[in-house]
Amino acid sequence: MKAAGLIPNDFHADSDGALTIGRWRVEALASEEGPTPIFAYDSAIVAARIARFRKAMPEDVALHYAVKANPFAPLLRFIAPLVDGFDIASIGELERLHGVDTKAISFAGPAKSDAALEAALCSGITVNLESEQEAERALALAERMSVRPSLAVRVNPPFGLKGAGMKMGGLASPFGIDHDRVPALVRRLIDAGADWRGFHIFCGSQALQAEALIETQRATIALAGELANEAAASPPAVNLGGGFGIPYFPGDQPLDIEAVGAALRESLRDRPQQLETTQFSIELGRWLVGEAGVYLTRIVERKVSRGRTFLITDGGLHHMLAASGNFGQLLRRNYPIAIAPKFSDEPEEEVTVTGCLCTPLDLLADSVRLPRADVGDIVAIFCAGAYGLSASPISFLSQPAAREILV
Amino acid sequence: MKAAGLIPNDFHADSDGALTIGRWRVEALASEEGPTPIFAYDSAIVAARIARFRKAMPEDVALHYAVKANPFAPLLRFIAPLVDGFDIASIGELERLHGVDTKAISFAGPAKSDAALEAALCSGITVNLESEQEAERALALAERMSVRPSLAVRVNPPFGLKGAGMKMGGLASPFGIDHDRVPALVRRLIDAGADWRGFHIFCGSQALQAEALIETQRATIALAGELANEAAASPPAVNLGGGFGIPYFPGDQPLDIEAVGAALRESLRDRPQQLETTQFSIELGRWLVGEAGVYLTRIVERKVSRGRTFLITDGGLHHMLAASGNFGQLLRRNYPIAIAPKFSDEPEEEVTVTGCLCTPLDLLADSVRLPRADVGDIVAIFCAGAYGLSASPISFLSQPAAREILV
Repeated sequence: MKAAGLIPNDFHADSDGALTIGRWRVEALASEEGPTPIFAYDSAIVAARIARFRKAMPEDVALHYAVKANPFAPLLRFIAPLVDGFDIASIGELERLHGVDTKAISFAGPAKSDAALEAALCSGITVNLESEQEAERALALAERMSVRPSLAVRVNPPFGLKGAGMKMGGLASPFGIDHDRVPALVRRLIDAGADWRGFHIFCGSQALQAEALIETQRATIALAGELANEAAASPPAVNLGGGFGIPYFPGDQPLDIEAVGAALRESLRDRPQQLETTQFSIELGRWLVGEAGVYLTRIVERKVSRGRTFLITDGGLHHMLAASGNFGQLLRRNYPIAIAPKFSDEPEEEVTVTGCLCTPLDLLADSVRLPRADVGDIVAIFCAGAYGLSASPISFLSQPAAREILV
Repeated sequence: MKAAGLIPNDFHADSDGALTIGRWRVEALASEEGPTPIFAYDSAIVAARIARFRKAMPEDVALHYAVKANPFAPLLRFIAPLVDGFDIASIGELERLHGVDTKAISFAGPAKSDAALEAALCSGITVNLESEQEAERALALAERMSVRPSLAVRVNPPFGLKGAGMKMGGLASPFGIDHDRVPALVRRLIDAGADWRGFHIFCGSQALQAEALIETQRATIALAGELANEAAASPPAVNLGGGFGIPYFPGDQPLDIEAVGAALRESLRDRPQQLETTQFSIELGRWLVGEAGVYLTRIVERKVSRGRTFLITDGGLHHMLAASGNFGQLLRRNYPIAIAPKFSDEPEEEVTVTGCLCTPLDLLADSVRLPRADVGDIVAIFCAGAYGLSASPISFLSQPAAREILV
């Protein structure tokens, strides 16, 4: 037997013991919105995460949503009034925000084409510059278009985020500009007449240790102060990055965001003078929406082969690559999973849950204990709200698409 | 420094030392068909692989193309007259074959929905049954539709393909029916009046050792004979599976397909009597098209960070997930790579090649030695013809799509 992942405690059973999402019993949801597979995103969970962030964090820290985590349009519209801005990683993401009241938008990404820079500069959003060459291209394009460019500098800091699932600082990197070259670039931008918007300093993602985040945020604020001093310019804004992780697997402890918030309050109170009027922001994707999403897929076959039981579903890695262990994981571990109509039941048997693709890679849960399930039952895979459908090879084997709903 | 993968020796430079694909210099191809990123598939390489198969294999062994490897429509149309049939893994793949002269089609896949079975039975293709329940569903649906179903039995054999990149036999499996239960199912199909088409026995994929394939094919033929004897019925056809691998990485030796063919000739000469009139087929995807494809992506940034040089391109894992090491690989290894305009040049520097996505996962080649490359140069990533674009998360970060061309 292998362990299954941790089901977020936001989910509950109805009086019949069946899983509910929002006010819907999963089976009713699937009949209404069907057919499966379906990604259901619970807006109440997203709203609760945002409220918890607001309560835990200093009042003057802005919250941005990182669109890359989940660009589903109804979700973007739901989030818009609750956050202070959006961070995008492509012009495609900007287009997805069309018609959404976005307040502020900033755009990061290591290989922005001229076309992407032009679109960004035209629309007046902040471009986080990833290199000196990109800065020169942006300045030249802005001049040609006669717009004053809004430009921030993405910094490659000399430290990383400890214990991060993905480290993005303290190393040679395609992202951002090595910190020691940043002040010169800031001067160049200001001297060229750009609207210099400040710094973007992103050190890693998917961290669960409050201490590591606290230390990184402290170091980030100190670094922003030093860079500002060296450049002799106060940054209007500093994006402290994100990095707030969610628990997926046994042993993962949820992040103590209240501790992070309390420490950040102190760090900001003691911040360098150059940052006195700076607007700080935190950019979150996974932490806001990851636990709100459930991937629902129906059992098509219940099959015993050489003594082992397989539940074969109408879904698979083409919708939910991360659950198959093929997206950024070194070791495959089971995502949290449940048999939706038997959410309250005790496990009865050991099963392996697969998708419908004709490849052994298409494994959704390996040797987990679950209540007895039959053909037609819906399997729920949790933690599917971030880096789920949009991070999956949807065309693989030309299978039917999944639908997405916000409940 | 880390090693780069093996460039297929089908590719050559022109007199200026630039990479050519078909009769095109890559830069000319990109100007004509642009913009990058582009997947270019060289039809001459595909044709050469098919010709080599025909020469190496016994004349009466049929060749089927496994659409899942690459479902690009012009490629399917090109392959159609050169092969004896197609194997599909979804009704979506059947739809992609619309208008293609396909001769024979068979359909395998572990969770065929009733809708998929209906579509398959209607169109008269052979359905490879993966379980007894699926058999009953297919029989019932065929009766309801008043069609005589063409049904083969996919066998889960008691042996696997040694050294396969992906093993699919000898284990408990969601694929096929455990061999000891197969004869009873064959009787059931025949007694129900179905057009029983024979067996499909697939043991694994991406094998490079001729000996392993020879042994597996021998065992497969013997097993087909035993099952036929037990069922007291001669199979009209036996699909011996595929499993022919291609070299990707240093140390990989190309498969000696001539040795496989010679041994198969012997095995078929000595085959059990029950198989005397059986049509044998081999189903290949990767071996036919994998080395024919090149992913072409242009350098947008050349960047030095903390002493390391990054070439940042307009492509990435959203088009070519396998090259990033995130599709079925336990350990990340570099795919074969070249700077297209300097294909003949000696390497001059160590670089890391990344895509344009704002994630450290988006690594195309880690610390490889290449000729000096600059912004605007096209990077070629080889072995991109199978499980490339269709096996990648194309929506991830909402970046522009890649285009595909057959040259």
